Amino acid sequence: MKVYLDNSATTSVDPAVVKEMLPYFEQVYGNASSFYSFGREAKAALDKSRETVAGILGAKADEIFFTSGGTESDNLAIFGSLSAIGKKGHIITSKIEHHAVLYSFEHLEKMGYEVTYLNVDKNGSVSVEELEKSIKDNTLLVSIMHANNEIGTLQPIKEISTLLSNLNNARKDKIYFHTDAVQTAGKVPIDVKDLDIDYLSLSAHKFNGPKGIGVLYVKRGSAISPIMYGGHQENGLRSGTENIPYIVGLSKALELSAHSMASNSQTIARLRDKLQLGIINKIPEVLINGNPAKSIPNILNASFRYIEGESLLARMDAKGISASAGSACATGSLSHVLAALGVNPVDIQGAVRFSFGHNNTEADVDYVLEVLPEIVAGLRKMSPLWKGK
Amino acid sequence: MKVYLDNSATTSVDPAVVKEMLPYFEQVYGNASSFYSFGREAKAALDKSRETVAGILGAKADEIFFTSGGTESDNLAIFGSLSAIGKKGHIITSKIEHHAVLYSFEHLEKMGYEVTYLNVDKNGSVSVEELEKSIKDNTLLVSIMHANNEIGTLQPIKEISTLLSNLNNARKDKIYFHTDAVQTAGKVPIDVKDLDIDYLSLSAHKFNGPKGIGVLYVKRGSAISPIMYGGHQENGLRSGTENIPYIVGLSKALELSAHSMASNSQTIARLRDKLQLGIINKIPEVLINGNPAKSIPNILNASFRYIEGESLLARMDAKGISASAGSACATGSLSHVLAALGVNPVDIQGAVRFSFGHNNTEADVDYVLEVLPEIVAGLRKMSPLWKGK
Repeated sequence: MKVYLDNSATTSVDPAVVKEMLPYFEQVYGNASSFYSFGREAKAALDKSRETVAGILGAKADEIFFTSGGTESDNLAIFGSLSAIGKKGHIITSKIEHHAVLYSFEHLEKMGYEVTYLNVDKNGSVSVEELEKSIKDNTLLVSIMHANNEIGTLQPIKEISTLLSNLNNARKDKIYFHTDAVQTAGKVPIDVKDLDIDYLSLSAHKFNGPKGIGVLYVKRGSAISPIMYGGHQENGLRSGTENIPYIVGLSKALELSAHSMASNSQTIARLRDKLQLGIINKIPEVLINGNPAKSIPNILNASFRYIEGESLLARMDAKGISASAGSACATGSLSHVLAALGVNPVDIQGAVRFSFGHNNTEADVDYVLEVLPEIVAGLRKMSPLWKGK
Repeated sequence: MKVYLDNSATTSVDPAVVKEMLPYFEQVYGNASSFYSFGREAKAALDKSRETVAGILGAKADEIFFTSGGTESDNLAIFGSLSAIGKKGHIITSKIEHHAVLYSFEHLEKMGYEVTYLNVDKNGSVSVEELEKSIKDNTLLVSIMHANNEIGTLQPIKEISTLLSNLNNARKDKIYFHTDAVQTAGKVPIDVKDLDIDYLSLSAHKFNGPKGIGVLYVKRGSAISPIMYGGHQENGLRSGTENIPYIVGLSKALELSAHSMASNSQTIARLRDKLQLGIINKIPEVLINGNPAKSIPNILNASFRYIEGESLLARMDAKGISASAGSACATGSLSHVLAALGVNPVDIQGAVRFSFGHNNTEADVDYVLEVLPEIVAGLRKMSPLWKGK
């Protein structure tokens, strides 16, 4: 049996999305920036996709920019806003951001920016009060993710934007606000006007679209400059011939996930809760990391004490189960997210993330609960830490 | 009848390429950076593609980096090399580069770099002597395209690399050399060791691969730093979840184009020459821009004097013929390439680029030669410039 429980790392492309993309490879292959009718058909598909995405996010079409994925969207929001602001100063993020944000901030620190990395509580939540206290006269940008990719914790984005909006009324220099919503699209509703943010990043392959295409939402009037130079596509913000098949695919995938979000999220949350309960009932010495009640519905992060997550993954893999330790992007290193939550290093090593998608079933969970206790027991038998107990 | 003669703007994806990509959307969809077997299958496809591309270009696998396309490859080569070099200085390019290079250099000029924009002769050729004269003690980087995208002129890349290599032997600080080979891949053989360059950019959609995927070749040991930050994919140089379907597609497309390059180039050159001869014989007052004998085989750029290229394109479009005025990326503005060649502004306005691909036939050329003279004559009848003659 094959059970894929790593949907936060990536998802399969929905067959309906593949079907939607196919005509744009061999038939409607014109360059959307070209003059002739071939190009116009591609341009029409581009415009329609932009309007669809804008409609779902509560944005205007001219606030939607297509990029090569979540990493580029995050980099464009961060470096592009600061480049447009045009002066150095103070910037704020959290300790549990995705590396696309965290490493961008670390690079900016090397460039001379002053950076605050906010702590999180044991559930992974940023404190709005701590954020407020950290703000300085020269604060330029805040970047806090919508939901974390390892534990699923939803951050108080609206409370933060309300705080910043109030502060901005009394400031000379506006503080801009970015959120990486790569993990939330398709799981919880996203309305950029309601969230009242300046920049929001999405990546199609997290919601059953293709890998290598993303969106950056930029509020009208918010500071932004390109980070790459060329043919002035995407209204001058993102140069490079438009990847029409993937843009059409992203739009379709976002549409499908928005339509079935309510029922999918309910099903997925039920499966996750069932797995959590089953693990706790069947396996001793397991810690649940983060707080599933404050999280997106699809992530369960658990530390199987006294064993190594990597070994657990290998044995699950041998049984056909795919999950991950920390984020897929950080294979080999100890999770900075769990460390920020205060999980002790030994328990971080025993952490596994199970992440659900809409293709998962009750049978998947039953199968995991059938094989997992035995695998854990087997590994613990070999563990000096466990034996010492 | 439909005749597509804008293959330098973009090409259709080869059916064999689409077939090769398809399994990676719905079946082998794992994250190549993941731990489990799903990820390993994707990783294997990634490795194999990298080896294929390296083999065709005469490179080693660890010198090949996948990007989101030609624009990103150019930006990564230019900004990434200078960032690794770590100091400001003098940089050299030509006046007829693609905007991805030209605008990058213009941005660097604003940042405080000293820039030389080399002239070209009436054929669009850079002079190696002029380049040599322009080199200074603080020259850091030279970027000269392999072939121009509007007129097809092949530059003396090997002569330039030999010059730089000789100079570098006697210099403290190496001068690095980048070439944008976006227009040459699949048209002329590319061997990076023979060309002896540090960086080379490719884009799949110019050789019947998908849009939104490219390659940057970086010679082992040559200065390079990332321009985006994140999960450290592509050996740390290019973060972002790997776009396996497109990477597999790029590799397949490059393989196909390499296999049939000799015969395709011959056929394409014959078709282009036939079109050129036909135009010259049937239509008075036409200038051929650049020198097809010094060019890649697939581009014919002609100025139809006393009329506007845009009007000509519109009328050809109405008859099912797709071509372009200047590059697709620069719609609306006067070609900087033809201006650098010394073509007068009125003749630049009358310029049309016909670019062939391996799907074109004799019948395509016959059809263009059948309808074009009438279209040109019709437009000239309305032209005050023509009437005044």
